[in-house]
Amino acid sequence: MTRGKFITLEGIEGVGKTTNVEFVKQHLQKQGISVVVTREPGGTLIAEKIRDLLLQQNSESLSEQAELLLVFAARAQHIKHVIEPALLQGNWVVSDRFTDATYAYQGGGRAMKTSAIEWLEHWVQGHLKPDLTLLLDAPVDVGMARAKARGGSDRFEDERNSFFERVRRAYLLQAELYPERIKLIKANQPLIDVQHAMVESMRVLLR
Amino acid sequence: MTRGKFITLEGIEGVGKTTNVEFVKQHLQKQGISVVVTREPGGTLIAEKIRDLLLQQNSESLSEQAELLLVFAARAQHIKHVIEPALLQGNWVVSDRFTDATYAYQGGGRAMKTSAIEWLEHWVQGHLKPDLTLLLDAPVDVGMARAKARGGSDRFEDERNSFFERVRRAYLLQAELYPERIKLIKANQPLIDVQHAMVESMRVLLR
Repeated sequence: MTRGKFITLEGIEGVGKTTNVEFVKQHLQKQGISVVVTREPGGTLIAEKIRDLLLQQNSESLSEQAELLLVFAARAQHIKHVIEPALLQGNWVVSDRFTDATYAYQGGGRAMKTSAIEWLEHWVQGHLKPDLTLLLDAPVDVGMARAKARGGSDRFEDERNSFFERVRRAYLLQAELYPERIKLIKANQPLIDVQHAMVESMRVLLR
Repeated sequence: MTRGKFITLEGIEGVGKTTNVEFVKQHLQKQGISVVVTREPGGTLIAEKIRDLLLQQNSESLSEQAELLLVFAARAQHIKHVIEPALLQGNWVVSDRFTDATYAYQGGGRAMKTSAIEWLEHWVQGHLKPDLTLLLDAPVDVGMARAKARGGSDRFEDERNSFFERVRRAYLLQAELYPERIKLIKANQPLIDVQHAMVESMRVLLR
């Protein structure tokens, strides 16, 4: 059995990840590929409970260290119970966010040291990295307007624009550091052009 | 304002930690000390929610890595919102379990590498260590009989005796490594003798 490929979609709120995860899934299925769609934080029973702790507003503030540790606790569950078994069985895994989001939100947004993220990444993931990451990028005010139009907000969505500017900049830095793996997709263009760019980026994996 | 002292009680299930935490608190209060009693995992709103995740039985198993990360996520909250503020205000803090329990349960019981625990301990705690740790020690079958008599059981109490033998051995190793900080108290003797030994161990801190 050939091991499947691991594709992640990344980007700030409101750049169209949900729509495009669905598009990627359908595109792969048309090629006869069996696809498992998942998300972070979450993706398993326990990881979704950890997601609730991360997103819910409490009277007590969540410390930055606790936030980062919860993110990786959820990720450890996700890898063990969903991602690795699916890849081993030859499925492709498409995840709405993965570790680049940790560098972006906790490293960029919260300004935490990347050395701690790197240690945790290596300890939890070993050699596991996405084969391809589609980074949907748009100016923060565009993303925020779309996110707010959806209504409701969680602990992250309540952050100020300056937080999301740092998140976006950290995402762009990741793309610069790993140009082979991370493909930058302009999200602020007609959907058909976004999807065309994603199809182009997936071409190498599908050969 | 003089910084308070930090005392932890450790030991496997059924060695009498709850009773003796209460005794330690009353003994300190009699000397006019203001005492904050707390516990791990837990001690804050969010840390208690993480405790629930650690103790509850789920259809999905909790990975060893996720377990260790959740333990330190709860500890980060506990230190930031309870332990450090209380010590800074001159209170003494008495905690039912702290990081020695991580070396015992995850390091000994789960046989995880101590290097990961050490990294997390240093990252989350910095220089914070207990000033005194009272390790209540008894043979595993004695502790288990008392724990079972209480009824109910959680994800840890359902482990086999061999697990608790490893936990006990790891606790005793901690006591050997840090003899200045950790005082070994034989729990399998009349309560009055246990409490006499605890009073003796606290004498140095109270000078």
